[in-house]
Amino acid sequence: MNGAQALLTTFVDNGVDVCFANPGTSEMHFVAALDDVTSMRAVLALFEGVATGAADGYARMAGRPAAVLLHLGPGLGNGLANLHNARRAHVPMVTVVGDHAIHHKRFDAPLESDIDAVAATVSGWVHRCMRPGDVGADAAAAIRASGRGEIATLILPADVSWSDGGVPGTVSPLPDPAVDADAVRAASAALRSADRTVILVGGDATRRAGLTAAARLAEATGAEVLCETFPTRLERGAGVPAVPRLIYFAKFAAQQLAGTTHLILAGARSPVSFFAYPDPESPSDLVPAGCTVHPLAGPRGAAAALQQLADEVAPGIVAPLPDVARPAVPTGALDAASLAATVAALLPENAVIVDESNTAGAAVPEATAGAPAHDVLTLTGGAIGYGMPAAVGAAVAVPDRPVLSLQADGSAMYTISALWTQAREGLDITTIVLNNGAYQILRWELANVGVAEPHTRGRRVTDLLDLGNPDLDFVKIAEGMGVPARRVSTAEDLAAALREAFTEPGPHLIEAILRA
Amino acid sequence: MNGAQALLTTFVDNGVDVCFANPGTSEMHFVAALDDVTSMRAVLALFEGVATGAADGYARMAGRPAAVLLHLGPGLGNGLANLHNARRAHVPMVTVVGDHAIHHKRFDAPLESDIDAVAATVSGWVHRCMRPGDVGADAAAAIRASGRGEIATLILPADVSWSDGGVPGTVSPLPDPAVDADAVRAASAALRSADRTVILVGGDATRRAGLTAAARLAEATGAEVLCETFPTRLERGAGVPAVPRLIYFAKFAAQQLAGTTHLILAGARSPVSFFAYPDPESPSDLVPAGCTVHPLAGPRGAAAALQQLADEVAPGIVAPLPDVARPAVPTGALDAASLAATVAALLPENAVIVDESNTAGAAVPEATAGAPAHDVLTLTGGAIGYGMPAAVGAAVAVPDRPVLSLQADGSAMYTISALWTQAREGLDITTIVLNNGAYQILRWELANVGVAEPHTRGRRVTDLLDLGNPDLDFVKIAEGMGVPARRVSTAEDLAAALREAFTEPGPHLIEAILRA
Repeated sequence: MNGAQALLTTFVDNGVDVCFANPGTSEMHFVAALDDVTSMRAVLALFEGVATGAADGYARMAGRPAAVLLHLGPGLGNGLANLHNARRAHVPMVTVVGDHAIHHKRFDAPLESDIDAVAATVSGWVHRCMRPGDVGADAAAAIRASGRGEIATLILPADVSWSDGGVPGTVSPLPDPAVDADAVRAASAALRSADRTVILVGGDATRRAGLTAAARLAEATGAEVLCETFPTRLERGAGVPAVPRLIYFAKFAAQQLAGTTHLILAGARSPVSFFAYPDPESPSDLVPAGCTVHPLAGPRGAAAALQQLADEVAPGIVAPLPDVARPAVPTGALDAASLAATVAALLPENAVIVDESNTAGAAVPEATAGAPAHDVLTLTGGAIGYGMPAAVGAAVAVPDRPVLSLQADGSAMYTISALWTQAREGLDITTIVLNNGAYQILRWELANVGVAEPHTRGRRVTDLLDLGNPDLDFVKIAEGMGVPARRVSTAEDLAAALREAFTEPGPHLIEAILRA
Repeated sequence: MNGAQALLTTFVDNGVDVCFANPGTSEMHFVAALDDVTSMRAVLALFEGVATGAADGYARMAGRPAAVLLHLGPGLGNGLANLHNARRAHVPMVTVVGDHAIHHKRFDAPLESDIDAVAATVSGWVHRCMRPGDVGADAAAAIRASGRGEIATLILPADVSWSDGGVPGTVSPLPDPAVDADAVRAASAALRSADRTVILVGGDATRRAGLTAAARLAEATGAEVLCETFPTRLERGAGVPAVPRLIYFAKFAAQQLAGTTHLILAGARSPVSFFAYPDPESPSDLVPAGCTVHPLAGPRGAAAALQQLADEVAPGIVAPLPDVARPAVPTGALDAASLAATVAALLPENAVIVDESNTAGAAVPEATAGAPAHDVLTLTGGAIGYGMPAAVGAAVAVPDRPVLSLQADGSAMYTISALWTQAREGLDITTIVLNNGAYQILRWELANVGVAEPHTRGRRVTDLLDLGNPDLDFVKIAEGMGVPARRVSTAEDLAAALREAFTEPGPHLIEAILRA
């Protein structure tokens, strides 16, 4: 058994049986070992950012890590933006970066670069494997480390992979984090006070169990529950306790939190603005002056802590649950509101929404509040190019659930080749590209950062925020990668296209032309 | 004058008047300053790897740096692979990475990451600008540093950019490197010996002046001249001294160098294999046993050192120059040979070839040896996804010259959105996508690294090297991004398509279906 075979055997023996891969020469023995370890499913990506984003989406829905196979430093670089998003989402991932053979390193060959330094910026655990006999144990350590909700990166020299002497490893699972009794006591006191108290949920508290506990606490004490702006995986819709999200723009988020005396953090970090603005009404730190922050639990164990807190503070209280309430399918030209209503009217049971719709999808959360229960995966780290790859991973993780990928046009172009992987794997993904022909958020941000309104600026400025000239034709692009596609510009056409896409198996793309 | 205005003013005052940009919120003041500093040309890329690859291609043809504008750590990550290639090519580049405002850093906002660590892996010079009053001087220092053939990275916090107090800076140019008299003496002695001597050219010695000097030395002494495998910019064709390139695969490169007693390095590094192989006939170090290596000059100043050496060793000797010798346009189904002959038959005068054709373009160098003089830019660092972006930069740098982008299918998909920038800027680029439906080089490498021949492996292995199922349709993909395209599968159709593309202004794409 060579190192590569020991690696794959360790993976599949310990529940890591999907690998999103973009291999090169230094990974050829890993690829060859797929013939020997046949329970590993390898999914080819045409670009590393697709592989890392898919592993993120997979982990969010499967609840366990996928492996990612990357080629040397440039491959890691290409995957870095979606590794950043995964790091911010606290998802488990095991990243294998193939490297030159150990004896080859000192020659500084053209593809040599500092893999260790780049990997360290996104990984909770980085290790360079040096002997075939260690590969299994190192892989097991990586899987264990990933269980903390981190990226574990194993750098694997080619000769360690091709040499004999591999021994499979065994993972000793991590214990669940203990609930912190002192933190529960402090939160309990805050909730029993007469002051305005907000419970900010994130991490594993944004699924049904955590949301139910938080809603019971709200029902019992009058506290408010808010969800972090970009949750890793938010369960919502009919039958799931509803929770508004903290608004993206600092000025409005500050208004949401104004007057709060106690802020309980259940899996969420203390809220901060995405960006700083010259405007003094847009603070960096979103905690109001005089508010006390009570960290209850980190991203792992937040639901358990909320449940214990609810059993103490809200015994016997039942969380109110929203009923099914869908809008009718609207008619007429598409805009943000009619697009959202159409999606809400037709969302299938048990769907997964991967949301990188940015500005154009802003009306979707409110419209879908009463749609059948569904999961939403969001752009946790703010690095665009996440949606289409994450949809790949989600569809691989839960093949019996329909995936709806809401994708802004500008962001789509970062990792557009994810469509080819969707086609190759026959994944049940419906993508709506929300085409407004611009980096619309930057038009808003240009004003937010204090330069004049975009329409008063010269063409040289607005051209850099504009995706026209030429217009992108997402129908042709999708068809070029094997995904059937159509273009719509009315709500009724969008509805017809959605019905068809949700009915037929395999991927579909709908380019929705939005009225400005 | 704010920091952003001081930055742009310093750039254009010192010859950096093109910026390839993919901006975000933290770069909005840089974008706004384009209204004020109107001699800066900003070129929008839809993905950062396009911006960095374009800046590389620009610098190779313009002989001076472009600026690149990237958004935070994820933007830098997306641009990293082509920064790696640029580093290996020793091209000057000034990279501006926008960062959060200084007072915002400590909040570890979602897009926060270790920009400095990632930038250091590719940059010869990294600096974080901390005051608006320093921006001009820092930008000038970056431009100066880039003159050493390095990437200079300036990290620019948003508040430094938006605050007043900017002062433009002035660049004090770098002196040319001096010729090393001892190195010239040693090389001279080697050339005068009776031993087999090879001059390996790279850096600035792969253009007409350096090649002419090397060819005079060869003519006078019987030495051989070889070019490094992936030169930054190689001048060749009719009227330019011909030089074979060191072969990519170690086994064959070792055969090329076998029996060499003296190896003179003129701008090239001591030759090493791209990858290590288990096969003992494929060494890492390509210098034969017993061969003495004579470093004559680094990448800057290699042509000058060769000229001085030639004046000493080969006074009055004239370099032999190849005549124009083109094949006729072939007919019949396209394969590597007929594609190469068609290109050689029709290459326009004074063309720039950007070569990322990998395996499928292997016959092009020999076929075009007698084509009209042209420049070739190659994949110096081995990080694929270089060709289409570099073609953008080359066409911006030399708008009066036709650019031929020879692009392998697999590599094309890494930075495919470069086509949109080609269309938007109306660049005179003819792209041939060499479509063989596979990562063909990995099929070869699978055998080279000692696993069985690919055709004996199971479907699970070969699927990871195969670009079919579904086939990529590059005509639709190109049209979707605004580039007119057609598909050809015979030499005569390729010839017709090339004639049309070379005649019409603006970009064109030809998908060449290659017989296996």
